[in-house]
Amino acid sequence: VESPSQALIELLGVVAYGELAGFFRIAADAELAPSLAESIKMAELADIEFRHYTLIGAHIQSLGIEPESVMAPFVAAFDGYHERTKPADWFEGLVKAYVGDSIATDFNLEIAALLPADSREVILKTADSSSHVEFAVSTLMSAMASDPRLRGRLALWARRLVGEAIAQAQYLAAEHEGLFELINGTANSSPVGEESNEVIGLDLGRAFIRLTEKHTHRMQRLGLAV
Amino acid sequence: VESPSQALIELLGVVAYGELAGFFRIAADAELAPSLAESIKMAELADIEFRHYTLIGAHIQSLGIEPESVMAPFVAAFDGYHERTKPADWFEGLVKAYVGDSIATDFNLEIAALLPADSREVILKTADSSSHVEFAVSTLMSAMASDPRLRGRLALWARRLVGEAIAQAQYLAAEHEGLFELINGTANSSPVGEESNEVIGLDLGRAFIRLTEKHTHRMQRLGLAV
Repeated sequence: VESPSQALIELLGVVAYGELAGFFRIAADAELAPSLAESIKMAELADIEFRHYTLIGAHIQSLGIEPESVMAPFVAAFDGYHERTKPADWFEGLVKAYVGDSIATDFNLEIAALLPADSREVILKTADSSSHVEFAVSTLMSAMASDPRLRGRLALWARRLVGEAIAQAQYLAAEHEGLFELINGTANSSPVGEESNEVIGLDLGRAFIRLTEKHTHRMQRLGLAV
Repeated sequence: VESPSQALIELLGVVAYGELAGFFRIAADAELAPSLAESIKMAELADIEFRHYTLIGAHIQSLGIEPESVMAPFVAAFDGYHERTKPADWFEGLVKAYVGDSIATDFNLEIAALLPADSREVILKTADSSSHVEFAVSTLMSAMASDPRLRGRLALWARRLVGEAIAQAQYLAAEHEGLFELINGTANSSPVGEESNEVIGLDLGRAFIRLTEKHTHRMQRLGLAV
C-alpha cells in the first residue's frame, strides 16, 4: 500500500499535466481561428492553462518534488486523448476548448475538497477560466443559428470528446495505484477506518455524477445534448 | 504624408504581432522537445512572448485603438517568415527561438528610444526574456560538443533565419509608409527640420549595425558564425 502523499502527488501530477497539455493543445488549435481576434481569444485561454500549470508546478516543487517526474506517468494518457481528438475545424476546436476547460474546472473544484489545505488553496486558484471560455459559447451559438446542420455534427463531436476523456480517466485510474486509492477513499492523510473510506468513496461517486450533470447542463444550454 | 502617430501605431503593431506570432510558434515548436522538462522550458518562453503581446496590446488599446486592426497588416509577413522557417528538429527549434527572441529584444530596445515616454516604458518591459532563453544556449552547446557535424548544419540554419527575417523586414518597410517614415526619421512626434531627420535616420542606420553586431556576437559565442 502506498503512502497517502503518493496519492496527493499523483493527483497534483494529473492536474498539472492536464493544464500543460491543455496549454499546448489550445495554442495549436488557435490556428484554426478564422480571424486574428479569435486566435487571440484562444491564446488568452491557452495562457490561462499555462498559468494554472505554473501554479501547480510551483506547488509540487514546494513539496520537494520535481514536477516533471510526477507528470511523466500521465503524459501518454493526455497526449493520447489530444491525439485522438484533433479538431477538424474551428468550431470543433471551440467545443473541445469549452468542454475540456469546463470539465477540468469542475474536476479541480471536486478534488480540492479532498486535499490538504495548502494544496487545496492552489487548486482552487485554477478554477478561474470560465469567463474566458464564454466567447466559445457565444461564437458556437451564433454559428449554429446560421447553420443548423452544424449542431448535429458538434453534438456527436462533444459526445466523442467525453467518451475519450472517460476512457482515458479509467485507464489512468487502473494504472495508478495512488489515484485508485484516492477514488476508493483509502488515501486520506490521517489513518481512516472502513466507514470513513466508504464515505469518501461515496462522495467521489457523487462527484462523478455532479461532473456528468454539469457537463450535460452545459451541452443543453449550447443545444448540443442529443 | 501620414500623421506621426500613424508611424507609432504601426511600430506598436509590428512589435505586438511579432510577439504574438512568436508565442504561437514557440508553443508549437515545443513539441519537438525530447523531454517534458525541455518542452516546459519552451512553454515558459512562449508564455513570456504572450505576456509581451498582452502588455503591448493593452497599451495600443489605451491609445484608443483595437490591437487587431493595427496588427493585421503585419500578419502575412510574420506568418510567412514562420512558414518558411519551420524547424526540422529540436535543435533547429532552439536556434530559432534563441535567434528570434534575441533579435526581437535588441530591436525593441533600439526602437524604444524613438518612442514617446509611455510607449517606451511598455516596450522596455518586453526586454526581459534573455534569462529564459539561456537554456537554448547551454542545450545547443552540449549537443554540438557531442555531435560536431551538428554545428555546420545549425550555422547554415541560423544564416537562413536571419536572411528570411531581413527579407521580411525590407518587405514591411516598403509596404508600410509609417514605418518607412520612421526609418527615415520623418515621423517624430514634434515637427522636425531636415537636420534632425538626418540625425534620427543615422541613428537607425547605426541601430541596424548594432543589431547585426550583437547577432554576430551571439553566433560566435555559440560557435555558429561561419
